[in-house]
Amino acid sequence: MTTTTTQIKQGKTGIFDRIESQVRSYSRSFPKLFGKAKGATIYGHDGREYIDFLAGCSSLNYGHNDPDMQAALIDYVTSDGIAHGLDMFTEAKEGFLLAYERLILRPRNMDYKLMFTGPTGANAVEAALKLARKVTGRTNVIAFTNGFHGMTLGALAATGNAGKREGGGTPLNGVHRAPFEGYFGPEVDTADMLEQMLDDPSGGVDAPAAILVEPVQGEGGLNAASGAWLKKIEKIAKKHGALFILDDIQAGCGRTGTFFSFEEFGLDPDIITQAKSLSGMGLPFALTLIKPEHDIWKPAEHNGTFRGNNHAFVTARVALEKFWSDDSFSKSIAKKSAHLETRLGAIAERYGFSLRGRGMMQGIDTQDGDTAGDICAKCFEKGLIIETSGGHDEVVKVLCPLTIDMDLFDKGLDIIEDAFEAILAKDSPRVAAE
Amino acid sequence: MTTTTTQIKQGKTGIFDRIESQVRSYSRSFPKLFGKAKGATIYGHDGREYIDFLAGCSSLNYGHNDPDMQAALIDYVTSDGIAHGLDMFTEAKEGFLLAYERLILRPRNMDYKLMFTGPTGANAVEAALKLARKVTGRTNVIAFTNGFHGMTLGALAATGNAGKREGGGTPLNGVHRAPFEGYFGPEVDTADMLEQMLDDPSGGVDAPAAILVEPVQGEGGLNAASGAWLKKIEKIAKKHGALFILDDIQAGCGRTGTFFSFEEFGLDPDIITQAKSLSGMGLPFALTLIKPEHDIWKPAEHNGTFRGNNHAFVTARVALEKFWSDDSFSKSIAKKSAHLETRLGAIAERYGFSLRGRGMMQGIDTQDGDTAGDICAKCFEKGLIIETSGGHDEVVKVLCPLTIDMDLFDKGLDIIEDAFEAILAKDSPRVAAE
Amino acid sequence: MTTTTTQIKQGKTGIFDRIESQVRSYSRSFPKLFGKAKGATIYGHDGREYIDFLAGCSSLNYGHNDPDMQAALIDYVTSDGIAHGLDMFTEAKEGFLLAYERLILRPRNMDYKLMFTGPTGANAVEAALKLARKVTGRTNVIAFTNGFHGMTLGALAATGNAGKREGGGTPLNGVHRAPFEGYFGPEVDTADMLEQMLDDPSGGVDAPAAILVEPVQGEGGLNAASGAWLKKIEKIAKKHGALFILDDIQAGCGRTGTFFSFEEFGLDPDIITQAKSLSGMGLPFALTLIKPEHDIWKPAEHNGTFRGNNHAFVTARVALEKFWSDDSFSKSIAKKSAHLETRLGAIAERYGFSLRGRGMMQGIDTQDGDTAGDICAKCFEKGLIIETSGGHDEVVKVLCPLTIDMDLFDKGLDIIEDAFEAILAKDSPRVAAE
Amino acid sequence: MTTTTTQIKQGKTGIFDRIESQVRSYSRSFPKLFGKAKGATIYGHDGREYIDFLAGCSSLNYGHNDPDMQAALIDYVTSDGIAHGLDMFTEAKEGFLLAYERLILRPRNMDYKLMFTGPTGANAVEAALKLARKVTGRTNVIAFTNGFHGMTLGALAATGNAGKREGGGTPLNGVHRAPFEGYFGPEVDTADMLEQMLDDPSGGVDAPAAILVEPVQGEGGLNAASGAWLKKIEKIAKKHGALFILDDIQAGCGRTGTFFSFEEFGLDPDIITQAKSLSGMGLPFALTLIKPEHDIWKPAEHNGTFRGNNHAFVTARVALEKFWSDDSFSKSIAKKSAHLETRLGAIAERYGFSLRGRGMMQGIDTQDGDTAGDICAKCFEKGLIIETSGGHDEVVKVLCPLTIDMDLFDKGLDIIEDAFEAILAKDSPRVAAE
Repeated sequence: MTTTTTQIKQGKTGIFDRIESQVRSYSRSFPKLFGKAKGATIYGHDGREYIDFLAGCSSLNYGHNDPDMQAALIDYVTSDGIAHGLDMFTEAKEGFLLAYERLILRPRNMDYKLMFTGPTGANAVEAALKLARKVTGRTNVIAFTNGFHGMTLGALAATGNAGKREGGGTPLNGVHRAPFEGYFGPEVDTADMLEQMLDDPSGGVDAPAAILVEPVQGEGGLNAASGAWLKKIEKIAKKHGALFILDDIQAGCGRTGTFFSFEEFGLDPDIITQAKSLSGMGLPFALTLIKPEHDIWKPAEHNGTFRGNNHAFVTARVALEKFWSDDSFSKSIAKKSAHLETRLGAIAERYGFSLRGRGMMQGIDTQDGDTAGDICAKCFEKGLIIETSGGHDEVVKVLCPLTIDMDLFDKGLDIIEDAFEAILAKDSPRVAAE
Repeated sequence: MTTTTTQIKQGKTGIFDRIESQVRSYSRSFPKLFGKAKGATIYGHDGREYIDFLAGCSSLNYGHNDPDMQAALIDYVTSDGIAHGLDMFTEAKEGFLLAYERLILRPRNMDYKLMFTGPTGANAVEAALKLARKVTGRTNVIAFTNGFHGMTLGALAATGNAGKREGGGTPLNGVHRAPFEGYFGPEVDTADMLEQMLDDPSGGVDAPAAILVEPVQGEGGLNAASGAWLKKIEKIAKKHGALFILDDIQAGCGRTGTFFSFEEFGLDPDIITQAKSLSGMGLPFALTLIKPEHDIWKPAEHNGTFRGNNHAFVTARVALEKFWSDDSFSKSIAKKSAHLETRLGAIAERYGFSLRGRGMMQGIDTQDGDTAGDICAKCFEKGLIIETSGGHDEVVKVLCPLTIDMDLFDKGLDIIEDAFEAILAKDSPRVAAE
Repeated sequence: MTTTTTQIKQGKTGIFDRIESQVRSYSRSFPKLFGKAKGATIYGHDGREYIDFLAGCSSLNYGHNDPDMQAALIDYVTSDGIAHGLDMFTEAKEGFLLAYERLILRPRNMDYKLMFTGPTGANAVEAALKLARKVTGRTNVIAFTNGFHGMTLGALAATGNAGKREGGGTPLNGVHRAPFEGYFGPEVDTADMLEQMLDDPSGGVDAPAAILVEPVQGEGGLNAASGAWLKKIEKIAKKHGALFILDDIQAGCGRTGTFFSFEEFGLDPDIITQAKSLSGMGLPFALTLIKPEHDIWKPAEHNGTFRGNNHAFVTARVALEKFWSDDSFSKSIAKKSAHLETRLGAIAERYGFSLRGRGMMQGIDTQDGDTAGDICAKCFEKGLIIETSGGHDEVVKVLCPLTIDMDLFDKGLDIIEDAFEAILAKDSPRVAAE
Repeated sequence: MTTTTTQIKQGKTGIFDRIESQVRSYSRSFPKLFGKAKGATIYGHDGREYIDFLAGCSSLNYGHNDPDMQAALIDYVTSDGIAHGLDMFTEAKEGFLLAYERLILRPRNMDYKLMFTGPTGANAVEAALKLARKVTGRTNVIAFTNGFHGMTLGALAATGNAGKREGGGTPLNGVHRAPFEGYFGPEVDTADMLEQMLDDPSGGVDAPAAILVEPVQGEGGLNAASGAWLKKIEKIAKKHGALFILDDIQAGCGRTGTFFSFEEFGLDPDIITQAKSLSGMGLPFALTLIKPEHDIWKPAEHNGTFRGNNHAFVTARVALEKFWSDDSFSKSIAKKSAHLETRLGAIAERYGFSLRGRGMMQGIDTQDGDTAGDICAKCFEKGLIIETSGGHDEVVKVLCPLTIDMDLFDKGLDIIEDAFEAILAKDSPRVAAE
């Protein structure tokens, strides 16, 4: 921490130490004052370049300051476009809805109502859980080990992380915790286990309002559920009268190669939550998609001041139009994902580690939080911003912009490779050569 | 509703009806497609002008698209300033913190840590309640009749409105409801009542983690607490080891004439929540101010993706510098507040109604939700956007930009006056003349 | 405590200190080993006589070992009558039900179903609250300051005493605490306050499943509600769709002069709970009376092993037949109550204290727990068993058997009078003469 | 049910239908008016004899009306022994404590404090859970599939049965449900699973205050945990700072052959709950045994009126002296258990069913609730009282008095054998011959 303080002070001032709450998080891993950012590069206040393999935790799938989004936003602000209009009808909102209908819903034959919640993923999850309880008249929610859904009391109850849960300061109720796919090893089918407990009239798990699951657990260790398992979970939900909620906040918006992370699985969720990269440019924006038959909200029953972030409507529309009008973006992600898998796979194999995740959210499970932390710290020294994931922070997680060019991508991967060597095999020739 | 649909369809499309969730709220009162906005004026897509006496529910205290904020934001975007940086150190954040320290904290001799929560008021309240419970090791929170604190499960439990509470779908626990000042009439001291119950070892109200109160209840009917009552509540909190939390989300940022709504009362809250107008321009942004001795968060214990809305940092800094560098803005608000009180007072007197609120958040209690609703609808016909407040939506509430020029202010007030006449005294000469 | 130990050890053994949990309660006030008991007299193991002005906290309204109940029980046991039969049909149960119908329900034109709960008052209250929630589909329950309803989690949530509540070890939810009659002084109508909060859609008190109230708060300080106030509370309950539950566990079975403590008030409760003196002889026994239209339990939905205490059925039947076949018992209670009021009134007046309670549950509010405790300790020295009541244990409470003969009654009252003198006026002639 | 009514009406009266709540349970399976009972025989009001293979759900392990207990009780009542003395020191209580110390604790080298809770098993469990939460400062409790712990809100939360849980009328919180031993088949170690989830900082199961488990699940289908599994659970509890609570209410007092059901396993529970047969004669009585270091209750912190059922103290003392002074009773139970296993085993084998349970709580899992119900109904026709167990009521459960003589035991088992034949093999010769 003293290092942090000193570095920043040298950079400019001690204001962060003076008046920012110690709850701050990422600035501890990256003790640097940043200024500008473009594409996959972030610039320190001193001009030093950092490759961004964190991408706002998947909020910057299209990179920093996409020029088309920038232009649209500047044009909008310049022309006095409404910035804040509560949830009133605005042209910016209309433009987003039309694009979302045309480019996302219709091509996928999806029929959903869009609920603009408060502009955080947590709020989208809270809205989803409230609605599921309202629709079913039940209160119990099934959530999974390593699940991550937000910090507000309803979402936090569904989140698995003990450190976050303790912050609640009060018992977190209303959630039954079930093991995610593969939690007890590859040969144990945790969906069957959940079904058995729910089928059993003396199983002690109350009939659920919802089963809430992330297709890929981004914070919980890059655990990627299979389509077969998710399909089973969906069936269990429907069999037991529960709503099937997919939390696609971190894995969506192209991160796994398609707009929704579960498109290839043939699922039919009752509710989908979105946030992070939805605005295209990293602006606060969240969405809860609801099957029309479940849209039983009374007007204003879940309201909030910032449900209409019009700047985000503008940039989100550009993002949809630019990246989702045809399948070229998906194809490029697939290509990069394969490349990522190859390169990470090689590193993992060298050290006997295993790969985790799917698409452009893959990582290496180092089995140990300190190791993974040291590797990420080493990467940062070398100009790469990258973070860990998992209950023990044991996974080195690659979450770079999907738009990154191949050279920079490889440069970042080279840094990771070197950092693994530096930390795990200090006497290897390449490191010695440095 | 059919009218709404038709109007909007004529305007452009039926997209809102097709795919927006029916939870939408304000668009029902103002069935119009809006495009641009400047100062206190909002423009319909067809160019029609509306005077804005709602101001994003106090999120636009400085008006729409303040030119200095616009310029700063455009400059920031143009120069590839970081839009999204999680909670990393950025120059935009540093600029905001420095300005907040220099212009807000120091001149008021306030010593607080700033916690950037998810960018919604609800999230700021959730963080405040979580921290109070963590600090005290208790779970019970005292909140008040007509209190409004947000829609996520923790904040919703503290909110009084039954319609909102029912949306929770699950029992809302952890809050004891106490009557706000004046709830049982002017002669009943509700602070004494609360104290008696807390003092009583058999009173049945558990020792509280916090007492959470709005200095002016913006949604709950413009109930303005007196300094004396708030001081008593603060003393009760300290006496019983509870944190005293002021929710200044709607009443803060100049709405009552000073940056914090309670400055003149000599209070010393343990936690203060801010949001709404904090960004200056209506961008999502929220803050929880914490006395340093209570800042016991563990790193990342309450995290979230959009805690660093850098665009908001930029505009918020400009807002502080432009409006809070000296007392001229406060003075102008005081002047306008007096004018508002005079004009609303005259209308209220004419119909035997009473005034509610304080500063630039005043309204007329019509005693009846239908009456107030009809008056607001009539205002909208005449080009004024204005809403109701209160448990029965019985208060016609004026929440215009604080920067409104006097002519437009009076024009809006004229519309209100006319609307009262139109609804309550249809045969009066002036209305007949129209 | 050392005294306690020593005394008992001298009496016989140290077994209580060795292996009884320190949670024990009354044995601390009365550190004596007791053996037999008859009528209103308890005998120490050494033969010393104590007048019983505690009567098992109103569980021994008919005195210890009533000879008719003894005879019936001995006869029943001798003849191999079923002691334990779960909730099967037994002749003992049939006998009780027939007597209850003939002697209690029919003469009072009451139409209730009898639910035999686990044989504790807490269990009767738990059953009442569960049923009210089931009937209404709501979860919130209104309970009052100083209310006492039991120690199990559901009943404890409704109990006001902080010391008891802390024993729960977990937040106690589902109850809104309202002030009992007179809580804020005689001129404040707390029923009106409750009504205002419930009527108010923004009052923040959820629509209740039940309003739970004791006609006389036995543990909470002998607060006797007036008929007018209870009638108001009943109306509020019905107006708001809540069940009106009277907890008559301590005040019932003749304690106030009639079988139910509220008979004179013309109330029509949805549910009534009974326990304590119901068995007649102090055996564990409890009952929840339910309006037939609310008896929507599914078979066995609230079960329990000891719901059919057949010994209690036998003695309870005798109690009904012996004491409630005509109005002579009621008349004698009324006479004694008047006598009690006169004598206690005289003492209270002498010291400027006020009387509390109603019927044969009256006491003197000494305003101070230490004083009341000293008085009770002094009484015990002089051979009288008596306890305090109230949030601060400030009330000296007379709860003697209703069957006590007048001589013994006066002897006990003399001891109280002397104890007041001894503690409060040590230099008075009478005490000096001793 | 009409049959029930008619039968009972013919027997005597329709009083049960008229005024008993429909929540009644066992009287539905055994629609008969009973009068007397002795040993293992219950007599109908008409003198018909029934063999009792239910024994008050294990509350009558020593049979009905044991002559020595009868004599002691009659003597006690005749001599005006205190029936109800709150929790004061009485000679009856002293006698029980001395016997418990001498005959139960000392021979087993057990060091526990005895807490007399309200006289129901549920109350003993509530006290255990409250204390565990108080001791640990945590709120989460681990309970198991098919667990049964009582109907009051705290105990009900730990109970698995859906039908009972729905009776709560409110969400039941504070319990994480884990699979009991063998729940997922013999090859899946559910203790390991629990450990993995608790070890995992992102497992989402909060650090528990207690792990609560029945050594044999009496209501949940006669699932007998192995010593090895219980030992593992104990280790997990200690490793995670949780109290290990054994609920021995149904399996204790000799039912499995020893006074505690887990004696042979070498366990060291922090808390043990007892009730059912503890009084010896079926009188309401319950006990929570607490390791001295956990006995941190404040005086009266968990109180209750009937904590001192002195009649039960008397009979319980006799039971201890008569049956637990040497090992002859244990040996006779072992012999009968072997006989039971042989005979039930033969029946089970004939129909391809499996045996469940341990000691004198064994049954046959018919895999189907209707079948088991039909068999029990057939038994009742033939003069045997027997009930089902399990989540689907699929197990025919033998719970006869442990003191039953071998002839009557075999007579009852013959009836069971015949009933299986009658229901499952109607055309078999033996049945045809009837």
